[in-house]
Amino acid sequence: MEKENKDPREKTISTAVINRLPRYYRYLADLKDAGVERISSSELAEMLGITASQIRQDFNCFGGFGQQGYGYSVPRLYENIASILGVNEGYRAVIVGTGNLGRALASSPVFRKRGVTLEALFDVSPSLVGQTFCGFSILGMEEFEDYVAEHRPDIAVLTVPRAVTREVAERIDRAGIRGVWNFTNIELHLAHATVQNIHLGDTLMTLCYDLREKSGQAGE
Amino acid sequence: MEKENKDPREKTISTAVINRLPRYYRYLADLKDAGVERISSSELAEMLGITASQIRQDFNCFGGFGQQGYGYSVPRLYENIASILGVNEGYRAVIVGTGNLGRALASSPVFRKRGVTLEALFDVSPSLVGQTFCGFSILGMEEFEDYVAEHRPDIAVLTVPRAVTREVAERIDRAGIRGVWNFTNIELHLAHATVQNIHLGDTLMTLCYDLREKSGQAGE
Repeated sequence: MEKENKDPREKTISTAVINRLPRYYRYLADLKDAGVERISSSELAEMLGITASQIRQDFNCFGGFGQQGYGYSVPRLYENIASILGVNEGYRAVIVGTGNLGRALASSPVFRKRGVTLEALFDVSPSLVGQTFCGFSILGMEEFEDYVAEHRPDIAVLTVPRAVTREVAERIDRAGIRGVWNFTNIELHLAHATVQNIHLGDTLMTLCYDLREKSGQAGE
Repeated sequence: MEKENKDPREKTISTAVINRLPRYYRYLADLKDAGVERISSSELAEMLGITASQIRQDFNCFGGFGQQGYGYSVPRLYENIASILGVNEGYRAVIVGTGNLGRALASSPVFRKRGVTLEALFDVSPSLVGQTFCGFSILGMEEFEDYVAEHRPDIAVLTVPRAVTREVAERIDRAGIRGVWNFTNIELHLAHATVQNIHLGDTLMTLCYDLREKSGQAGE
């Protein structure tokens, strides 16, 4: 489908640039919190361990914001990247599965820091439903469809056991939630919802590969 | 440093191929568990949503294992990818920081599934130290250096609060642990240890970006 009604500047942003934006956003948030007003592409490059020309090229994709010799305005750059990434859209999320991982996410600043509001926790376990965690009264899954119809959350964080993943994912999709942040380690492709499949184990394997490579180099 | 004492087949594996291996590993583990003996590159391509020629090209990097017309031996391919990724190295891990995320990881199958043995949990909180979780008696950080000197774990899983991240990471590095799986959302670069920096929030931002893009397409 042709993209319409969009800021024309954004049409040219490639996926590769988009994938680098969250990292820029993290660094700019820290700089902003530290009260830094301006930063040059070479200072930012040094912090990020990439080249200044890469940074200039990436930032040029969405309008630049640098002034020759003056560097970039940190608050302006931060706001612009935030806006591209949808931080200001006011997205609202629910967690489905309030086990250890669900609780870890609920109690972390990960939502707030990205402008997402966590609004409810769901579980099936009678020992959890009705309990209060992080200020939320954990809701039972029998209330899920009614809750979604009434509150229209944008994102479901899926942290249920592997065995029930597909069934719960279908319910989320049918209920009309548009985004799924999926921690179940089962790759999901849903009819309507956009899914970000998270595979923590993949990064553990990459770490093990690196360790083995280094052992090899050391001749162990 | 020149790589020596290594299987000569492995010298040619590019980073791009290595980064795809954990995903192949996950799918092959599921196929193996389901008792599948052989699979063609086109069947595997269909499952993974990539091209059969990509798969053949990737697998050729480490010796092929396919027979024209017969496909790949699932157990053999699985074992070979496992071996390249260091799954059979018997790596041992400790978790440093036994809050919600540390406990979520300790109780998940993520270590076992990648051939990594979790051996100890550490924390500083007097309310946690001495408690038993998932069969581990949580150890105090004052025991950390002695424990590492005696048991030589390969990997530290870092799940401490942001404020103490750098201090604890330095202790891990000085103690001689070679790999750090870092969940603190602070990018670490240590003098000796290899670090895998995990930024869960980055994937949440990518999801928000996708949602915003889709809204744009729908003309909302």
